[in-house]
Amino acid sequence: MVNQYEKPVILADQMQTTLTSLEPLSRKVFLTLVPPSSLDNRAVVDQVRQLLERDFRPVRVPLALMSKIPTLCRDADWQITATMAETGLGWDLIEVEPGNTTQQQFGLAVDIGTTTVVVYLINLGNGEVLGHAANYNGQISLGEDILSRIRQAAEPGGLKHLQTLILDTLNELIETVCLTSLKPCQITAAAIGANTTMVHLLLGLDPASLCRAPYTPIVNNPGLIPAGELGMKIHPLAPVYCLPSIGSYLGGDVIGGVLVSGMHTKPDVSLFVDIGTNGEIVMGNEEWLVACAGAAGPALEGGVTSFGMRAESGAVDHVEIDGKSGRVRYTTIGGMPARGICGSGLVDTLAELFLNGIIDRTARFTHGRDEYVIVPALESAIGKDIVVTQIDINNFMATKGAVNAATDLLMENVGCPWQEISHFYAAGAFGQYLPVESAITIGLYPDLPRASIVRLGNSSGEAARQVLISRSKRREAETIASKVTYFELNANSSFMEKFVSSKFLPHTDLERYPSVKKRLDRL
Amino acid sequence: MVNQYEKPVILADQMQTTLTSLEPLSRKVFLTLVPPSSLDNRAVVDQVRQLLERDFRPVRVPLALMSKIPTLCRDADWQITATMAETGLGWDLIEVEPGNTTQQQFGLAVDIGTTTVVVYLINLGNGEVLGHAANYNGQISLGEDILSRIRQAAEPGGLKHLQTLILDTLNELIETVCLTSLKPCQITAAAIGANTTMVHLLLGLDPASLCRAPYTPIVNNPGLIPAGELGMKIHPLAPVYCLPSIGSYLGGDVIGGVLVSGMHTKPDVSLFVDIGTNGEIVMGNEEWLVACAGAAGPALEGGVTSFGMRAESGAVDHVEIDGKSGRVRYTTIGGMPARGICGSGLVDTLAELFLNGIIDRTARFTHGRDEYVIVPALESAIGKDIVVTQIDINNFMATKGAVNAATDLLMENVGCPWQEISHFYAAGAFGQYLPVESAITIGLYPDLPRASIVRLGNSSGEAARQVLISRSKRREAETIASKVTYFELNANSSFMEKFVSSKFLPHTDLERYPSVKKRLDRL
Repeated sequence: MVNQYEKPVILADQMQTTLTSLEPLSRKVFLTLVPPSSLDNRAVVDQVRQLLERDFRPVRVPLALMSKIPTLCRDADWQITATMAETGLGWDLIEVEPGNTTQQQFGLAVDIGTTTVVVYLINLGNGEVLGHAANYNGQISLGEDILSRIRQAAEPGGLKHLQTLILDTLNELIETVCLTSLKPCQITAAAIGANTTMVHLLLGLDPASLCRAPYTPIVNNPGLIPAGELGMKIHPLAPVYCLPSIGSYLGGDVIGGVLVSGMHTKPDVSLFVDIGTNGEIVMGNEEWLVACAGAAGPALEGGVTSFGMRAESGAVDHVEIDGKSGRVRYTTIGGMPARGICGSGLVDTLAELFLNGIIDRTARFTHGRDEYVIVPALESAIGKDIVVTQIDINNFMATKGAVNAATDLLMENVGCPWQEISHFYAAGAFGQYLPVESAITIGLYPDLPRASIVRLGNSSGEAARQVLISRSKRREAETIASKVTYFELNANSSFMEKFVSSKFLPHTDLERYPSVKKRLDRL
Repeated sequence: MVNQYEKPVILADQMQTTLTSLEPLSRKVFLTLVPPSSLDNRAVVDQVRQLLERDFRPVRVPLALMSKIPTLCRDADWQITATMAETGLGWDLIEVEPGNTTQQQFGLAVDIGTTTVVVYLINLGNGEVLGHAANYNGQISLGEDILSRIRQAAEPGGLKHLQTLILDTLNELIETVCLTSLKPCQITAAAIGANTTMVHLLLGLDPASLCRAPYTPIVNNPGLIPAGELGMKIHPLAPVYCLPSIGSYLGGDVIGGVLVSGMHTKPDVSLFVDIGTNGEIVMGNEEWLVACAGAAGPALEGGVTSFGMRAESGAVDHVEIDGKSGRVRYTTIGGMPARGICGSGLVDTLAELFLNGIIDRTARFTHGRDEYVIVPALESAIGKDIVVTQIDINNFMATKGAVNAATDLLMENVGCPWQEISHFYAAGAFGQYLPVESAITIGLYPDLPRASIVRLGNSSGEAARQVLISRSKRREAETIASKVTYFELNANSSFMEKFVSSKFLPHTDLERYPSVKKRLDRL
C-alpha cells in the first residue's frame, strides 16, 4: 500500500459534486410489513415483493433470500430494509436487513489504470466520496505496459494469473477503504472505469484479439455483472458496471473522461486528451465525436528519461531555471532528497530550457551541450547528478510530436481548424499534475485562454462515480460510446508525415501558440 | 422406477394438444454473424447481443458465456444458435451452440404430487410431449401425507433431507426421460405443478408456517429460479417456473387445474374437484372463483380400507356385482392376481353394493352383514379373501361427506344453487381413473348430464406444460391465483353440521341425483 505522500493519484476535487437526481445501481428501501394474520395471510415473500413493486418493476427475489425473509421479518418486528440492485433487466432484491438502514448505502467507484488502481467509497444516498485508497496495479509484476500484459495473458495460466492479480489489488483496496467501520459485503454496487485491456483481464476474457487485426474486443459493453461472479469481494449480488469501451484502443476510461468533461453536450468543438501509458484524443461537440489512440510511451510517467521516475516521494516535480545565472530551483514530492524526475518536473524542465534558450525550437541543446544538470550529485539521494540529456528530450519529443500529429490529423479529417477549439480537457495524471504554463510552452497543451483549459483530474474514477449513482449517466456513457467515430492512425500515411514534421517547440505552426510566441519575442 | 404396468399416472390425453402461439420459457434463435473485419470490428459479444435484441429486449449475457462466444463463433463459421431464457425481468442468453440447433428445444413439465412425481419431456418448438417418466415421490420414505412431511421438516436436518429426496426423484426421472438421445443439460426450461408444501420442500423453504395459524406460506409465487440454484440437473441456467399457489392449502397444482379446465373463462358456474391426499374444491366462473381445501385422507388412494392399495399391478380396479347371484366380476391392473383394491375398484364396489341393496342409503350393510368378499382367497395373490368392511365404507363416507359438505357450503356462501352448476371438472387420479357412473351413484361426482362431466387427467402436469410453452398462460395462471377467494372450512361451524348430515348415498338431498334416483326406483 502506498502511503499518503507516495499516493500516485490524488482524489479528484470535483468528486464532491453531487448529481441532483440519484438513481444508483443499488438502492435501499425501508419497508413496514403487515404481520400475517387470519385477515391478511399473504405469503411474506410475496408481501415484500408487492411492497417493492410499488417503486421497482419487475422485482425478482432470489431463492437464497426467500428462506431468510420470514424469520428476519418476524425478529425485526416487521420493519426491514430491502436492498434493490439493477440487473440490466429490472431489479433484484439482493439483501434484507432488520430495521431501517437506509442511511447506510455504499458503493464503489473504481479506476483501474494499467499502472494505478484507485477505489473510492461512495455514499449511494447522496453521491459523496467517503474515502478512497490507491495502489499500483498488481499486474505490474508481469509487465509495465499493456502489450506486455497481453503477451503474458497468452502464456499458459497467464490470463487467470493476471485476473487474480487485479482482483487481489482490488480486494485489498476494498478492505482498506472500508476501514474498521464497514464490512465489504455492505457495499452493494460498483462501477469501473478502465481501458479495454484492463476490463478484459478483470473479466477473465482473452485479450489476444485486442492487438491483432481487426482489433476487436470480446465485449465493449459487458453490462451488469454480479460481484460474486467476478470475484470482487463486496456483496456477492452487487451489480458491477464497467463503463463501455468502443474498441481495443478506446476504453471506458476515455468514454468516462468525455462524460465528465461534458464536451458531448456543448455546441462548440472541444479537445480531450489523456496521455498515460497510452494516449487517447477525442475531439467533437454535441453533434459528433472523433477519436484516435495509440501507445504514448511512458514519457510522462518517467519511464523513458535517464532519471525518470513515477510521481513518488523524492521525485523532482517542479523546476525553474534562472535565465541569467543558469541556477536551477526545484521541489520534490514530499520534500525528500531528489531521486529522479517525474512527468511534471520534466515538462517544467523542458519549458525552462526552451524559454531560456538552452534548447532551441527543434528541442536541441544549444552551445554544444548534451545534458543539463537539474540536481547536483551533492544534493541528490542517489549520489550522482540528476540530469536531462538530449536523448531524454528526443524521447519526450516523440510523444509530444505524436500527440500534435494525431490532433492535427483529426482536425484535418473533420475539417475543423484549430481556431475553433473552444475547450481543452486534460484527463488523468496528464491533466492533474502537469504545470499548465509549461505544458503550453512546450506545446503539450494548446495555447488557449487559460479559462478554457480544464484539468479533469481522475476523470475515469469520477465517471465511475457518476455512472454508479446515476442511471441517466449510464445511458449517457452508452450514447457517447455509440457516437464516437474511431480514427485509425496507423492506417494513415499522412500521420507519419505530420509526426516527422511536428517535432518543434511548441509546435510546427508557431501561430497557434500566440502566448508562447509573445514570451519568446520578449526574451 | 415403476414399470409400464405399475405406472401410477397415465399421460394425460390432452397433453398432445398444442397452443397456437408458443412463447416458451426458453427459446432458441439461429444467428448468422458478420465476421470481424476492419470494416466491422464490433466486439463479438456485442454483435451477438445486438442481433438478439431485435427480438428480445433487454438481453443479458452472463460473464461465463462471454469468454466462450468468440472461439465458438469462429469455429462454427459465424453461424450459431443462441438459447434465450426468460428471467422474469427480461431475457438471459444462457447457451450458445455451433450451427443451427433450433430444431432441438427441450423443456420439462413436472407434476410433483405428495405421492407421485411425473416428468414430461416437451418439445419447446411445438409444445408436443416427447416422453414421460413417473415414480413415487422419494419423500414417501419419511411419511405418506403432507402433515408428516411438515413434521419431518422440523427435525434437525429434516428440511434438507426432504429437499434432497425430491431432487433425487426429479433428477432420476430427468435421466430416464432423456433416454440416451438427449443430455439433461440440453433441457433449457422447466415448469412445475405442485401443492404448496411440495413447492416449499423443493425450494428448501421451511414449511412450518403452512400448518400453523395464520397458515401463511413463505412464498406463493416464487417466480423464475435458475435450475442450478435449485439443484435440478438440467441446464444450470434453465428457468424453472412453479405454478403460483394461493395459500397453504391451495397450491399451484389446483391453480393449474383451473387453468386447464378453462372454467375461469366461462360465463356459467363450474365446479372443480381434486381429491388426492388432500382435497380441493374450486367453484366459479369468469367473474369469480371461490375455493376450499382440506386433508381428504387417502380414501381414494387405497390407504384407509383394509385391502386398499395404490393403483398398481394386481389392484382390483373394476367391480361388478350380479344382483341376483351376488357374484362379483372384477378386473385387476395388469391382469395380475388380485392383491388389494384401488380407488376406482372401491368406488365401483360401493356403487354396486348400493345399487344391489347390499348397503343402504346410510351406507350400512343390510341383512346383518359386516363385510363383502370381492376376491375369494383362492383367486387372490395374498392367500386370503379380499373384502370391503363396514369400517372401510365408513372411512370412505367420511371423505365423501366432507367433499359434499364443503361443496354445499361453498354454494350456500356464494348464493349459487346446485342447479346452476354447468360443468364438473374432476382432476388428478380422482378425475382420471374413477368410473363415472359409479362415482355419480355414490355421490362423489354430481349427477349432471354426462357431457358436462370433464375428466382433466393430470391437470397439474398439463398446466405445467401450458405455462412452460406459453407466456400468456403464465399470466393467466397468475390472474387465476389473484382472483380466487379462499374459504376457510375449519373456521366455519356449519361445515361440521353439513358434514355430519351428509353421509348419505348418493347425497342427503336425493333430488340432486335424478339419474341415480331413477335407477334406484327401477330396482
